[in-house]
Amino acid sequence: MTYCVGLLLNAGMVCLSDTRTNAGLDNISTYRKMFTFNVPDERVITIMTAGSLSVTQTTLARLDEAAVDIEATPQTSILLAPTILQVVEIIGRTLAATSKEIGNRMGESASSASASMIVAGQRAGGDMRMFLVYPEGNFIEATPDTPYLQIGEHKYGKPILDRVVTPETSISDAKKAVLLSMDSTLRSNLSVGMPLDLAVIEKDACRVTEQRRIEEGDAVFREMSAAWSIALKDGFSAIKI
Amino acid sequence: MTYCVGLLLNAGMVCLSDTRTNAGLDNISTYRKMFTFNVPDERVITIMTAGSLSVTQTTLARLDEAAVDIEATPQTSILLAPTILQVVEIIGRTLAATSKEIGNRMGESASSASASMIVAGQRAGGDMRMFLVYPEGNFIEATPDTPYLQIGEHKYGKPILDRVVTPETSISDAKKAVLLSMDSTLRSNLSVGMPLDLAVIEKDACRVTEQRRIEEGDAVFREMSAAWSIALKDGFSAIKI
Repeated sequence: MTYCVGLLLNAGMVCLSDTRTNAGLDNISTYRKMFTFNVPDERVITIMTAGSLSVTQTTLARLDEAAVDIEATPQTSILLAPTILQVVEIIGRTLAATSKEIGNRMGESASSASASMIVAGQRAGGDMRMFLVYPEGNFIEATPDTPYLQIGEHKYGKPILDRVVTPETSISDAKKAVLLSMDSTLRSNLSVGMPLDLAVIEKDACRVTEQRRIEEGDAVFREMSAAWSIALKDGFSAIKI
Repeated sequence: MTYCVGLLLNAGMVCLSDTRTNAGLDNISTYRKMFTFNVPDERVITIMTAGSLSVTQTTLARLDEAAVDIEATPQTSILLAPTILQVVEIIGRTLAATSKEIGNRMGESASSASASMIVAGQRAGGDMRMFLVYPEGNFIEATPDTPYLQIGEHKYGKPILDRVVTPETSISDAKKAVLLSMDSTLRSNLSVGMPLDLAVIEKDACRVTEQRRIEEGDAVFREMSAAWSIALKDGFSAIKI
């Protein structure tokens, strides 16, 4: 499993992903699930992935290859597509085609050859946009009503997002929110694991303005997690019924 | 869907269930999912149900009929079985047989003909025991390490239980914990809905010592939910990263 979450705020976009992949409980590895494509001062695209590693890796490799191909066109390269919407359409097509191809090869057990992605991007002069791309290549977009998107094991970490995240949330609060959302998920689901990748794309920067890998035992994360635990217990004790 | 939770504490057992059932999103009804069998001063058994309504209703009806049959024996009646373990075995057998029968009748779509149950019980002179009965009739038991059991939509409401519930938790804190656990679930999942049924079985009472239906708009529940929301937001604001 996996947990990735992205917030689309007035001040910027905040993305967080875990790194655990597993094929059964007895085969656990660490793989990066966050990838950034950047044309300095022109566009930034951050992709987070969940699902079959074979599908997500192949999809990313193909997007990468198509982007740098000498015959790349705005219809095939996410570095040349004229809008973020068209970037997402390229990603959706590549993901769906890869899923289908691998699914066909797998035959009956094809149900596991699927993957989904969160795509956060901005072009110079354009709006920040964030999409969730489904295995079939169709997608939905984050809006002010629900300014976050999640893929993978999303349930444990959803309540905190519902309660604190709005488009007005500051980048600093947003980092706290995604980390606490991840903290609840890590506690409850073994298939989501450290280290974490955090990326912040501030509005109109057209680059990742903060990128951090949070390792197991990271002091800041551990303190925040402990403080949250205490805050929850104190809040609980204070409530009268 | 459904959410039911039971806590096994040193001071007693606390059970909470919602009442929403649905066949598709456009067919929602209210059905009680908590049932109590009581022989005053001798035994108390509270059963909570999740899954196919046709399976759970038929199972309960059969348990009821078998219990009051004039030829009832300790092998067939949950009111006569000599231990709570044997009570659970009767329930497990009845549930599995009913599931199988209804599943056979449904043929290919049999996957939906399954149900699970939480059984909380005590006999005079015996220990309080709480079991989760799986669709196949096998079961697991709550222990001091994990003194709670959940069925149905369990993920949203698990983090709060993990953080605050231990066997030493008081009945009053336990009621608060299950109600807040339900509150998180109600917020996130449309298929779980008010009203709620709350039951408390104090240790050695051999009866339900508190039984309450919490209706939509219940003032106490609403205040508690609002206080929890504020506590979470305040706790969140106070954390530094």
